[in-house]
Amino acid sequence: MPAEGKRSMGGRTSVTDRVEAALAAIEAAGPEAQRTFTKLYPDEARAAAAAADQRRAFGHTLGPLDGVIVSIKDLLDVRGEPTAAGSIISRAAPPAAEDAPVVQRLRAAGAVIIGRTTMSEYAYSGLGLNPHTGTPGCVADPTRAPGGSSSGAGVSAGHGWVDVAIGSDTGGSIRIPSAFNGLVGYKPSQGRVPTEGAFPLSFSLDTIGPLTRSVALAHATDAVLAGLAPSRLEALPVAGLRIGVMRGFLFAELDDVVGPAIEAGLARLAAAGARVVDVDLEAVTTLPGQIQSNGTIAAAEAAYIHRDTLDTRASDFDARVLARIRRGTEIPASVYVGMQRRREEAKRLADAAVADFDAVVAPTVPMVAPPIAPLEADVDLFNRVNLLALRNPSTFNFLDLPAASLPIELGQPLPVGLMVVGRRGRDADLFRVLAALEPLLAPAPRTKVV
Amino acid sequence: MPAEGKRSMGGRTSVTDRVEAALAAIEAAGPEAQRTFTKLYPDEARAAAAAADQRRAFGHTLGPLDGVIVSIKDLLDVRGEPTAAGSIISRAAPPAAEDAPVVQRLRAAGAVIIGRTTMSEYAYSGLGLNPHTGTPGCVADPTRAPGGSSSGAGVSAGHGWVDVAIGSDTGGSIRIPSAFNGLVGYKPSQGRVPTEGAFPLSFSLDTIGPLTRSVALAHATDAVLAGLAPSRLEALPVAGLRIGVMRGFLFAELDDVVGPAIEAGLARLAAAGARVVDVDLEAVTTLPGQIQSNGTIAAAEAAYIHRDTLDTRASDFDARVLARIRRGTEIPASVYVGMQRRREEAKRLADAAVADFDAVVAPTVPMVAPPIAPLEADVDLFNRVNLLALRNPSTFNFLDLPAASLPIELGQPLPVGLMVVGRRGRDADLFRVLAALEPLLAPAPRTKVV
Repeated sequence: MPAEGKRSMGGRTSVTDRVEAALAAIEAAGPEAQRTFTKLYPDEARAAAAAADQRRAFGHTLGPLDGVIVSIKDLLDVRGEPTAAGSIISRAAPPAAEDAPVVQRLRAAGAVIIGRTTMSEYAYSGLGLNPHTGTPGCVADPTRAPGGSSSGAGVSAGHGWVDVAIGSDTGGSIRIPSAFNGLVGYKPSQGRVPTEGAFPLSFSLDTIGPLTRSVALAHATDAVLAGLAPSRLEALPVAGLRIGVMRGFLFAELDDVVGPAIEAGLARLAAAGARVVDVDLEAVTTLPGQIQSNGTIAAAEAAYIHRDTLDTRASDFDARVLARIRRGTEIPASVYVGMQRRREEAKRLADAAVADFDAVVAPTVPMVAPPIAPLEADVDLFNRVNLLALRNPSTFNFLDLPAASLPIELGQPLPVGLMVVGRRGRDADLFRVLAALEPLLAPAPRTKVV
Repeated sequence: MPAEGKRSMGGRTSVTDRVEAALAAIEAAGPEAQRTFTKLYPDEARAAAAAADQRRAFGHTLGPLDGVIVSIKDLLDVRGEPTAAGSIISRAAPPAAEDAPVVQRLRAAGAVIIGRTTMSEYAYSGLGLNPHTGTPGCVADPTRAPGGSSSGAGVSAGHGWVDVAIGSDTGGSIRIPSAFNGLVGYKPSQGRVPTEGAFPLSFSLDTIGPLTRSVALAHATDAVLAGLAPSRLEALPVAGLRIGVMRGFLFAELDDVVGPAIEAGLARLAAAGARVVDVDLEAVTTLPGQIQSNGTIAAAEAAYIHRDTLDTRASDFDARVLARIRRGTEIPASVYVGMQRRREEAKRLADAAVADFDAVVAPTVPMVAPPIAPLEADVDLFNRVNLLALRNPSTFNFLDLPAASLPIELGQPLPVGLMVVGRRGRDADLFRVLAALEPLLAPAPRTKVV
């Protein structure tokens, strides 16, 4: 009975009203929304909203995600649809036989899935450019890149068209668009959230997580994605929090907005009583680059994943993505085996290196969202900026430490993210740290657009 | 107090007496013993024997391996010694800083480690030939190959110089010498026994286990290697045991001894009430060959492991081993990634395929131990026979199913092994099957030589 669901109840806006408002806002956004979503599910979203409103009317709830409006990245399987993963080539793939497990879990938790979001082709770049679907702008300035690869995810949540966007992160693909769009983005420890039913970029590095407006909502979403029971999130006391600042190459090449914003953020944490200290983790954080100096794990795995189309469909790829995957074809197996072995050792060292801290931090990305047009015009510029955007976040995919990007909102002209890194497998502890830091970094209450 | 330990006690031969007898038998064997052991530990063995006898005198025991005489394969780390792994090159390696975990566990269980045993260079062939240490003959006929790569392991246990030989098995290296020397050989499910401190052949496929004269002793040793508490081994009732016979390519090219011996063994199982039925597992057992048609996982990993010496020390390798490793250098990473992915799928299929059986069986090796001299003279013959020897056992390293070789002793002229394969991770169940089958396949009680 959608009619009933459409009423506001007890002063609280109904899910149906919120979904209608979201659909209207998306409609009103025109071409930018078309660059943000590869597909919308208005009828299914209305039905799911009505069901959520009915549950609410009867006093039932499926948990903290019940009635929450969600977008899913175009690489997640939805039963009966091809999973294009931002490509032309896979638009013609056979329809998925089942929803990805994370999609199933979202539905079971009462989430209202409103659409699929655009992305860098096959998730293989960090700025969000896509020649097939077009590139939406970041929410603060539509001439600037949205960040990627979960570009539509970041834009859909940044505009408030959805409460939560589900992205994937292999080298920063959740955290970069979170930083560029002023969102909380969360990359879990590997294995916490199942990656089955997600078009893979790298079997070894892929993770799935939320981009959203608050740590609380990120925490609730992560629990659903991980198949955990909902739990209360209690912020740790800020006073005495041990925060290690990873000055070193992760702080190199900061632009004029990011550098001061990070320092201002750290100063606020220290002023609130956190023990903010510099920590020299260069011996560990430089390992991903050293170990992958002759090619990357992701490139080798992508070369396998796309083996059947690299040559036969070359002209249908984004040339920037094709070039990266092709480099993976040149890596010998013995080099790949060595990278995997050395990665295991690096993960152990990383575990030990961060053990004395509640979190270690660095800028998520060294620069604010860059203008799109020059990147589209100059592939060398694109490659340089892309690698710089991926530099910091990818470090922690390789080392397999859970990591979030928290928005710094201290009056700077464009969004900046602080990357907050925890201990492997201790995602619950990291969320308690994030909850403590969030109000210090973004003191003004954020309001929902929808 | 060795003097006290040397006495026989209560009609039971003392450990000291047994160690002295073993050392004397090894001494008497002259050059054949030198081809079997790379090093002996007479003083340490005597001290360990004395300690075991003292415990026994006080009524103490460290468990079923207390006082049991053990040899260890030359690839296991022993603190203070280089781990040569059957090579010239690694004889000059730095001394190991620690005993391998399995060596530590054996010592803690009271085992008396009497020596290190010879092996195929770097464990990379199945017949046991080694140009550096010489090749011991199999125990039934010293002109025939011992089987490998745990060659000295099989010979040391086959002659009764030790109670238990510890080997490693990446493609059959425990099971082949067990078949050729009339021993029970056990390859566990991967991950059951730690492989740290063992010179690797293939990170993905290596396992460690015993070669010994009885299922009971194999079971007790496996528990120690796996770090499990000793447990009583209860044979399953033979009547009703579901035994699947994997007729198909695993039964191809059987020689005139192996074929009839296997049929005689199966007939005895059926006569005792086991439900011995043919099972068509070709769709699964042919996967390792299909998936590795462009190179093997082991070759790719060996190419990484030996990357620093393949070119610089080429002339110091066994040329037969070097050729196999070199093929691994030509495998692209994308092919290796694909093999690993497809292996995971094959493992799942294999789990399902054997789920309806208590065990599935095939000949361990299609032929009896081949004469050494022709193999040494003709590298093409060696390659052909080597691959044939590895064919059946390597299938179950790839599929990661636990597998044993049980001796068939039904009057045939040379030892023959029946490979008995269980379900992944259900090693305890497989041992109960092995205990049921053992007396049917080898009805005359075997006696210890020492």
